[in-house]
Amino acid sequence: QESIENKAPFFNQPLKDFLSTSEGELISCLVREFLEYFHLDFTLSVFDQETYHQKEYHYMGREKLCRNLKINKTDVNGPVLADVLQLASREDFSKPNG
Amino acid sequence: QESIENKAPFFNQPLKDFLSTSEGELISCLVREFLEYFHLDFTLSVFDQETYHQKEYHYMGREKLCRNLKINKTDVNGPVLADVLQLASREDFSKPNG
Repeated sequence: QESIENKAPFFNQPLKDFLSTSEGELISCLVREFLEYFHLDFTLSVFDQETYHQKEYHYMGREKLCRNLKINKTDVNGPVLADVLQLASREDFSKPNG
Repeated sequence: QESIENKAPFFNQPLKDFLSTSEGELISCLVREFLEYFHLDFTLSVFDQETYHQKEYHYMGREKLCRNLKINKTDVNGPVLADVLQLASREDFSKPNG
């Protein structure tokens, strides 16, 4: 009988592969920043477990995340994902700006 | 005696305000799609509770999410957030493309 640990109930190879890329790490950090920004503390504690935080990737904090994304985040309004979505909208969406 | 539900132990006004905007709803759906894409089921169940899913907003599914974002998602590789990040990168980041 194999142990439950060896069965790795939370083993998630697609996620691990994703996290091993710089894009994957950034996206996980963006999601994590969203959870942190809105104080979704219960979600966050499960998220950290399920995404192997501090094992497969490290959340670098909001400021460094913005620097990595080259987002000029001088204000503190909203999660960083809102800025990313706005940038993406300018590129390909047909929304008027302002 | 008020019921626990009326006490709203997870009451999160900043999040509720955010979810009342179309941008906020989109971002929450993007985060939710990420969790779903990687089968982060434990996170998802807590996330749904903590973000008032089905109360303050409704996840419209991956396909409709892509349509709303005007993302042409014919392949099924990766979470939609990866496409959003790539679009944002083209707009403002200094990465070469390809």
